Amino acid sequence: MIYFDNAATSGVKPKSVINAVNTALSQYSVNPGRGGYELSGKCNEIIYNCRKEVASFFGAKDTTSVIFTQNCTQAINYVLKGVLKPSDHIIVSSLEHNAVMRPLYELSKTGVSVDAAEVIFGDIDATARAFANLIKPNTKMIFCTHASNVLGNVLPIKKIGEICKEKGILFGVDAAQTAGVLEIDMQKMNIDYLCIAAHKGLYSPMGTGILISDKPIPKTILEGGTGTDSIIARQPLDMPERFESGTVNVPGIFGIKAGLEFVKQRGVDEIYKKELEMSKKCYMMLSQIGGVILYTDLPEYGRFVPTLSFNLRDYNSMELAEILGEKGVCVRAGLHCCPSAHRRIGTLQKGTVRVSFSSYNKPEEVVTFCNMVRIVAQGKKKSKYFY
Amino acid sequence: MIYFDNAATSGVKPKSVINAVNTALSQYSVNPGRGGYELSGKCNEIIYNCRKEVASFFGAKDTTSVIFTQNCTQAINYVLKGVLKPSDHIIVSSLEHNAVMRPLYELSKTGVSVDAAEVIFGDIDATARAFANLIKPNTKMIFCTHASNVLGNVLPIKKIGEICKEKGILFGVDAAQTAGVLEIDMQKMNIDYLCIAAHKGLYSPMGTGILISDKPIPKTILEGGTGTDSIIARQPLDMPERFESGTVNVPGIFGIKAGLEFVKQRGVDEIYKKELEMSKKCYMMLSQIGGVILYTDLPEYGRFVPTLSFNLRDYNSMELAEILGEKGVCVRAGLHCCPSAHRRIGTLQKGTVRVSFSSYNKPEEVVTFCNMVRIVAQGKKKSKYFY
Repeated sequence: MIYFDNAATSGVKPKSVINAVNTALSQYSVNPGRGGYELSGKCNEIIYNCRKEVASFFGAKDTTSVIFTQNCTQAINYVLKGVLKPSDHIIVSSLEHNAVMRPLYELSKTGVSVDAAEVIFGDIDATARAFANLIKPNTKMIFCTHASNVLGNVLPIKKIGEICKEKGILFGVDAAQTAGVLEIDMQKMNIDYLCIAAHKGLYSPMGTGILISDKPIPKTILEGGTGTDSIIARQPLDMPERFESGTVNVPGIFGIKAGLEFVKQRGVDEIYKKELEMSKKCYMMLSQIGGVILYTDLPEYGRFVPTLSFNLRDYNSMELAEILGEKGVCVRAGLHCCPSAHRRIGTLQKGTVRVSFSSYNKPEEVVTFCNMVRIVAQGKKKSKYFY
Repeated sequence: MIYFDNAATSGVKPKSVINAVNTALSQYSVNPGRGGYELSGKCNEIIYNCRKEVASFFGAKDTTSVIFTQNCTQAINYVLKGVLKPSDHIIVSSLEHNAVMRPLYELSKTGVSVDAAEVIFGDIDATARAFANLIKPNTKMIFCTHASNVLGNVLPIKKIGEICKEKGILFGVDAAQTAGVLEIDMQKMNIDYLCIAAHKGLYSPMGTGILISDKPIPKTILEGGTGTDSIIARQPLDMPERFESGTVNVPGIFGIKAGLEFVKQRGVDEIYKKELEMSKKCYMMLSQIGGVILYTDLPEYGRFVPTLSFNLRDYNSMELAEILGEKGVCVRAGLHCCPSAHRRIGTLQKGTVRVSFSSYNKPEEVVTFCNMVRIVAQGKKKSKYFY
């Protein structure tokens, strides 16, 4: 089996991550910090250390900024719904995932206004200007993806962060596709809110996300027991408890700690270079197959994450993924929860086949995969696949 | 070590649960159903089977009613915030957890009105009447805990369910302390919304909860990618996707499936009887120690879950838990995120020491524990513990 759906979740979890989850389940099934006994305190300490490492890895101002969530979607909802008020204006990119667009659709009903800045492929200055040009007096926040989950292109978040700083606008980043793959430093990039899918580039178990919130979030959307200020009906203000009501995902957090260590050990840039080489190789091989449609330029260092979209002639993306699936290749087809990107490249109808790499993939797999695509491309399309 | 904090999370997870999580991590790190390949479909099938078993276990109307959440708190927030409108009235019990009271505090700011029905200890008819007496023309919902997480007493939810059915009022139940411990049948008990902490009585990993929603929930509080209707900005109406945005906790759900099987194999009533015996034994032994204050009657079958609260003379609950912790006993002290129960029994200041049992505990542990309490009670209180 060849697994090229790492943009959904990294398909191989390191042994150290599996072991960490095991340790949590077999030795630390306790409510961290809320019990009056040693094990509860020890568990809390491990979780605190994980927060500390996450904070330091992403250049957060404070350990208490690190909030563990169930996925990146929850982190994004916390930011958008926690910060925006009815009269506020927000600018997003033209390539946002439904995790951003759907909460904003709900917020727009309350009076929040939304504009999407056009991402200009291959021109980071023009892209940054597109954001700047949309700023209004009531613009509260720019929130955008660090890299497209469909096309792989990286947005100039450092430049956008500078604009935000200059204009006094809050800046939130959806790092679902980049945390663990590209260097991210919240301080240097002026990021106020960083949303992370830990189960992707941080090789953590599914069911884990992180929100790093270096600026306050006035409103909560989930309240409950925090083990703190229990006597008060109001949700506590203390961070991170304010955003971690109820029992936390101890095995998941142990997994994040191990996943982060794995990434640090391999090195973000090493991981990225290895993955990008495969992505480039894949792009080049696919580009030489008659009938293959590629939607971006050749993935260059710093400009792309290791995620490619393509199609084949008159195949619907779903059909092609199914044919490849039967040959043992795991790729994703359709809209990837991101209609905006497909609107941009004209594939709303047929979707795209998406190929995405992890540091566990091997260049040989790319060759095997591309040869399979070639065989399909050279074959006669069977009528059952017509659409 | 003696672990008596099972009301927080069951301290021993069955081997089958740990194995199921392992299997998920090592073989099923894929987005269930959203990839165009076999493994994704197979993963989806396992998750669907888990939903089916959960639905059948709790007497839900439909498999699609079963929503996986990160904990019981999230499930409760989904119900309260998803159903109640500003002009609605809701009745809760006088023993609710902050997972209920804090979301309601937020909702009360929007105009939702809240009344708490007094739980009359030892009189289920009077308790049910207390709920009925609070019903107003605009009462939309009764939401209450199935059993107090502080005192262990069980609320007459069957009777309350009958009242709701008769009056056409929605009925939601917080089963954090009861799912897997007491029989729950949503149809027979007229429960519309059942909120479950799977990591407690269902022996699942921490980080797992379940909401079973047999009636619609008009509003969502989290939106995002669902892998369905991706082209539409509005959150899809299809269940359960509507309430499962973003990547789901695959290892957690595999764990729920194994945990539920463990409970079914041992038998809910067998588990309950075993645990209640320990609770009774503990109650009786504690009641014979001079200076021990118990807050309920002897736990009777059907009237109590295996959770006890007590205090010792002039010790603050935290001090006592600390002393017991040093002797290797894990108990919880303080308010247990439930000030309402402490208001009811007059322990808002000192809290209580809570002892809660799982089917993995042994009667010998109860004896050892009570002997420790006796020794502390007979000893002279050291000045460092004065308060």
